[in-house]
Amino acid sequence: MADAPAGSWVPGADGSGFGIENLPYGVVRHRGGRPVPAIRIGAFALDLAAVASAGLLPIPGLEPGVFAEPALNAFLGLGPRIWSDTRRRLQALLAKGSSELDPIAVPALLPLEEVRTVLPVNIGNYVDGYASIEHATNVGRLFRPEGDPLTPNWRHVPIAYHGRARTVVPSGTPVRRPWGQRPPAQPGAAPSFEPERRLDFELELGFVTAAGPSLGEPIPVRRAAEHIFGVVLVNDWSAREIQRWESQPLGPYLGKSFATSISPWIVPLEALAPVRVPGVPQRPEPLPYLRLEDPWALDIDLEATITPEASGVATRVTRTNSRGLYWSAPQQLAHATSGGATIGPGDLFASGTISGTEAGSYGCLLERSRAGREPIPLDDGGSRTFLEDGDTVTIRGYGEAARISLGELTGRVAPAGTWSGFHE
Amino acid sequence: MADAPAGSWVPGADGSGFGIENLPYGVVRHRGGRPVPAIRIGAFALDLAAVASAGLLPIPGLEPGVFAEPALNAFLGLGPRIWSDTRRRLQALLAKGSSELDPIAVPALLPLEEVRTVLPVNIGNYVDGYASIEHATNVGRLFRPEGDPLTPNWRHVPIAYHGRARTVVPSGTPVRRPWGQRPPAQPGAAPSFEPERRLDFELELGFVTAAGPSLGEPIPVRRAAEHIFGVVLVNDWSAREIQRWESQPLGPYLGKSFATSISPWIVPLEALAPVRVPGVPQRPEPLPYLRLEDPWALDIDLEATITPEASGVATRVTRTNSRGLYWSAPQQLAHATSGGATIGPGDLFASGTISGTEAGSYGCLLERSRAGREPIPLDDGGSRTFLEDGDTVTIRGYGEAARISLGELTGRVAPAGTWSGFHE
Repeated sequence: MADAPAGSWVPGADGSGFGIENLPYGVVRHRGGRPVPAIRIGAFALDLAAVASAGLLPIPGLEPGVFAEPALNAFLGLGPRIWSDTRRRLQALLAKGSSELDPIAVPALLPLEEVRTVLPVNIGNYVDGYASIEHATNVGRLFRPEGDPLTPNWRHVPIAYHGRARTVVPSGTPVRRPWGQRPPAQPGAAPSFEPERRLDFELELGFVTAAGPSLGEPIPVRRAAEHIFGVVLVNDWSAREIQRWESQPLGPYLGKSFATSISPWIVPLEALAPVRVPGVPQRPEPLPYLRLEDPWALDIDLEATITPEASGVATRVTRTNSRGLYWSAPQQLAHATSGGATIGPGDLFASGTISGTEAGSYGCLLERSRAGREPIPLDDGGSRTFLEDGDTVTIRGYGEAARISLGELTGRVAPAGTWSGFHE
Repeated sequence: MADAPAGSWVPGADGSGFGIENLPYGVVRHRGGRPVPAIRIGAFALDLAAVASAGLLPIPGLEPGVFAEPALNAFLGLGPRIWSDTRRRLQALLAKGSSELDPIAVPALLPLEEVRTVLPVNIGNYVDGYASIEHATNVGRLFRPEGDPLTPNWRHVPIAYHGRARTVVPSGTPVRRPWGQRPPAQPGAAPSFEPERRLDFELELGFVTAAGPSLGEPIPVRRAAEHIFGVVLVNDWSAREIQRWESQPLGPYLGKSFATSISPWIVPLEALAPVRVPGVPQRPEPLPYLRLEDPWALDIDLEATITPEASGVATRVTRTNSRGLYWSAPQQLAHATSGGATIGPGDLFASGTISGTEAGSYGCLLERSRAGREPIPLDDGGSRTFLEDGDTVTIRGYGEAARISLGELTGRVAPAGTWSGFHE
């Protein structure tokens, strides 16, 4: 950013993807202590509770208690002016040449290997979108091969549905293969109940919100960005057989609600200014309430790898970019509130699976393997159509040729439970 | 209940529907004070913070702070043994002949006209079901006249979707007519954006949960009732045109998320023991994880009235009963967690619209007016196909010939906003 200092005194921060121009927010536990808000700088977490307690964040409107909370919701509720002031102040403290933050007097700089990241916010509500036209088209072709792959509403409505906020989990949480109803082999037969066979990941980007207007008041699309605090990586784990069978007529439910993982560090929208690019053309033009004078997208390179437990060898199974998303974050948010629904600090809106135009850029295995018909070769000699037990899925994101990193989001597939509970 | 005392010393409580055998929980503000947990007895709210502070609730495991909270979530998290002990203790305090609760020393008994009821719990997650076979059949006939009215999954899956927890509002909150996308008049044409024309109510029953097992662990159906604290009336306000246009392929979103109203008083499941009746036969037999040895339903009479602002005359537009629901609350909860999703204190699961077999028992205007084709006459000489501005919808529920009341749930339709916001 134009106004960001040139570098940081924190060893290794410059060029790490977590330099002074990034400073994403998370919540960490240091050596088993209580969770505290932090920012990431290089290979360190800066404990904001300690920095604030030392009187080093004298920002009007930022009460000291805000960073004493075990989640960022209170800070998110303060809005863009205070976010911005706090960011500038933290940049000044960490800038090359600054000696205000004395690491001896204020032991706030914690090596990442000594902390555990936890969920950065209490997720109020979780909405998952369907913003990639490539993804929607691919899925439409697979599930409705006879008709138009896009439903008639798709180019008018930024389609979304509510997911289960309570099962949004932090990176690193093992994800158990869910049991669920498997569709009958032929029409009219009974479904079975068994561990899901077609477990999938979905590579997504999510944004986390501030407060919004009161019930019944919309957020105009041109002001939507003021209500967006920042961005995380999202893996919307999906059970494809459960989903296929349950989704008519009310949409996905258990196929999506056993776990959704998010990355530990929320990159502020302000830090992403250098990677704002023009949005994709929308035809037909969206309705006025979704129309921006200067539509924008985020140019973030994204990739997902699968690492089987046995080999430990990671294979990149998709490489894509969020700049191609048809529906933008401001449009998602303006749409969500256009009927009067409220948002609050810590609501999560995910993009939906991000796919590009080539098979190698498809953001989930359903598309990559064409619904299981075409196995994807792995670098360890194996192959996958869907995820197997022990597979670790890792999603990474970078902007501006890795100058701004979104970090990494991992989750390992744990075997299905034995469900003795069903019979006790 | 067998062990409940015969009556209460509170004037007017016996026979009011809120006698000693009911004692539902809510949260009230007394003369603008801070919100406190309360139970309703007759025409009074009993301030539980005051009762607990006076040392009158010496229940092992019930820390005094629990009723100092502005919502019931902490109490709900304590589980059925403590709920039961608390209930018995409150019944003893309020029983005829008891003088332990001295109204002068402990001014905890507040006339209802001096209090305002607020949302009794912070709703964690909100799930709406589709449990009435009559409703699902009617809606299927209206929307898919050519095919089988029930989707092939319906008799196997207790279908549900996530609603917006943040827009669950307490009884009495005005509900603004939402703006939204209106489907194009003919295929291929553009939708418009305007105030919803087909605003509807949905008469439902909801249950509010306790804590559950950890992520990845299911709740067996036979233990599901232990995780259900109690029951509320629900009006799942619906915007039918928005819903029709947006719902493919991911289900309802904005058509349902502008407001969902719940009644002020949560009737404990324990209080509803006298109205437990055998559940309806299910054919085919559900999968084992949804099978109960003694399936039960709640015999609760339900009605909805519409009162236009101009006339002030209420017309009962539906009268139904929850005993006919095909899918039961334990089945909904066991299904919800069967894939490993967690629940927590204060999650809300609604039944979906409750319809009976006759037109007069259909639980929403979509069914009552056959999608707007048959106006319903009102007692003031007017008629309705869908709701008009100024209409108040009131839902009431009673068990055991009014011995146990669920109280009433009201909401008035406010005109759509002018949405200057869209253009500012």
